[in-house]
Amino acid sequence: MLNIRQATAEDVPTLHSLIQEMAEYEHLPLLITEQILTNDGFGVQAKFRVLIAEFGGNPAGYAIFFDSYSTFQGRSLFLEDLFVRPEFRKNKIGRALFSRVAAIAIQENCFGIMLHALDRNELGNPVLQEDGCYVPRQLENCLPEGQCIADCCWSRR
Amino acid sequence: MLNIRQATAEDVPTLHSLIQEMAEYEHLPLLITEQILTNDGFGVQAKFRVLIAEFGGNPAGYAIFFDSYSTFQGRSLFLEDLFVRPEFRKNKIGRALFSRVAAIAIQENCFGIMLHALDRNELGNPVLQEDGCYVPRQLENCLPEGQCIADCCWSRR
Repeated sequence: MLNIRQATAEDVPTLHSLIQEMAEYEHLPLLITEQILTNDGFGVQAKFRVLIAEFGGNPAGYAIFFDSYSTFQGRSLFLEDLFVRPEFRKNKIGRALFSRVAAIAIQENCFGIMLHALDRNELGNPVLQEDGCYVPRQLENCLPEGQCIADCCWSRR
Repeated sequence: MLNIRQATAEDVPTLHSLIQEMAEYEHLPLLITEQILTNDGFGVQAKFRVLIAEFGGNPAGYAIFFDSYSTFQGRSLFLEDLFVRPEFRKNKIGRALFSRVAAIAIQENCFGIMLHALDRNELGNPVLQEDGCYVPRQLENCLPEGQCIADCCWSRR
């Protein structure tokens, strides 16, 4: 039922729709276009990598991540987005996407995955915590846009 | 007096010493070695870029940054470290390093620079604010290691 695969340039329209849904959820304006996504994600020097989750053949979610670095600990991945469409939730798709990114992190000798947790992510934050992410209970680091985030880290150790 | 230049593999011993000083300032254990820095920063697929600041011919500070991405806004740089040795402070070296990274961000069509501000950085945070970074007044997002950080963004707009 669930298939997770690397995205290609042909997935850009689907990906843009999914990011649009994510932006609506986060109440943020979306400045990025399909053209920008194509150039930055699927060109010669790609700035990010994308996994697409399909459930019953339909696009159900995605993960976007890129290389990150800590001068104290070395290589890591930064998980920019992990999103599952509302109608596909409760099928452990988010956890499967996260596990796939974690497998890549381990394969590439990263110490862990960095990410931001959003305060109103009531579904995702407990999953992250169960998987060993440190998520502060109170997310009090509020940005001018009104979103409150916390830096989290899933460590392979 | 002040010279800012791109680091090469020959700078790794100096760079490692500077990172060691930064780690002592942040009370964090340094896991990274000269060998890891050489492999990850100066190999075929470098994970980060380094600027070295020399003042009167002596290594005075450094900046380490890498490509970052926002699915809402597009390309950015993540400024991982910006450090000036205590004896070289008050010479606007930090601001010069920051300006150089900002110039690269503009040149590479980035929307801005992402960074973490540390709560006890009494010298650096006001500089960032003067340069237009948003730094929350209260940095309440504390990690288990005891450091309190805030996500900041310098935007070219």
